[in-house]
Amino acid sequence: MRRQKVSSAVIRRLPRYYRHLIELQKSGMERISSNALGKIMNLTASQIRQDLSCFGEFGQQGYGYNVESLRQEIAEILGMTQGNTAVLIGAGNLGRALIENFQFDRSGFRLLAAFDVDVALVGQTLAGIPVYHVDEMAGYLQEHKADVGVLTVPRSVAANTAERLTLSGVKGLWNFTNVELTVSNPRVVIENVHFADSLLALSYMIGDED
Amino acid sequence: MRRQKVSSAVIRRLPRYYRHLIELQKSGMERISSNALGKIMNLTASQIRQDLSCFGEFGQQGYGYNVESLRQEIAEILGMTQGNTAVLIGAGNLGRALIENFQFDRSGFRLLAAFDVDVALVGQTLAGIPVYHVDEMAGYLQEHKADVGVLTVPRSVAANTAERLTLSGVKGLWNFTNVELTVSNPRVVIENVHFADSLLALSYMIGDED
Repeated sequence: MRRQKVSSAVIRRLPRYYRHLIELQKSGMERISSNALGKIMNLTASQIRQDLSCFGEFGQQGYGYNVESLRQEIAEILGMTQGNTAVLIGAGNLGRALIENFQFDRSGFRLLAAFDVDVALVGQTLAGIPVYHVDEMAGYLQEHKADVGVLTVPRSVAANTAERLTLSGVKGLWNFTNVELTVSNPRVVIENVHFADSLLALSYMIGDED
Repeated sequence: MRRQKVSSAVIRRLPRYYRHLIELQKSGMERISSNALGKIMNLTASQIRQDLSCFGEFGQQGYGYNVESLRQEIAEILGMTQGNTAVLIGAGNLGRALIENFQFDRSGFRLLAAFDVDVALVGQTLAGIPVYHVDEMAGYLQEHKADVGVLTVPRSVAANTAERLTLSGVKGLWNFTNVELTVSNPRVVIENVHFADSLLALSYMIGDED
């Protein structure tokens, strides 16, 4: 029910709420008004109330939001408590950066394994994550349920790898390849990471100065 | 003038417009209605007209938008034609992934140089980009104007490196460190890349399926 008709803009804001609530907790804040939260997040108080109203009743008039409960609720809405798992395909520079430095657990994910074609990597572990040959992927995914496939392969094999992951039953693809993917199962969700979108927004903003 | 009062949501959509217009051009499309563009981008036609009206008059009633002119106009609005330059600090896995695989030129940027503390890297070139020692950065930036500093250093040195770049006169920081930065010059624009926001949005969306 709560998942009906939530706009993509709201979905995109939820992780930001989560991030800011974590920061507030770290700084020892126990409750916060929608006004104050709005100031931090550069939103209006009414936008915040409207966003959160998509998911139920949070906060109390005159009291505001309890930081810890709101953080917990948003974690649940985001699916962070559902025990998601991931596998990563392509242990090149970007793949390794994610394996070694990205904290999957902080997003509620467990990274199970990585796959690559490089025989020098296969059989190794990187930051505790085993690296298998890509040809072992389908077999591995029959034994281990992975919710998400992280795609850090070269562009040339992106489409093929995405389809293989889809056939192996992942629910989502976290796509770093910059290739617009289409897969045979329309229920598989594709989340594209476009570094260029971010750099172009920065390019726009530094143009302000001239 | 055109840069006044443009909401951050609109700024965030501009790179997406650009991306989709490139795709349309590749597929041979010469013009497109706001309705059709809206369908591709998952926006309403009126939202598109409203977004673009922030920057002037585009398109013609009954004709729609000329794909190539609109792409050019948006490139200009985004500052892609102003000859931006960048330096990258931290040539670890993520830094190298960007140096070797990210096409800075497609966003209108020229990557000039990289800096690292690893003596094994210093003096080398990666994909044509020279790697210098971080201690040479300030001197280098006196000789070469860099508009943006790309921060791919470890968290522990993120704040310090950001401040050094700021003092060296960059206008923007493209921050991959996951550290919330504050720098002494409030005019320096900080663009944070939060991988976790993207993974959490995916986490939400795969939750739909259950």
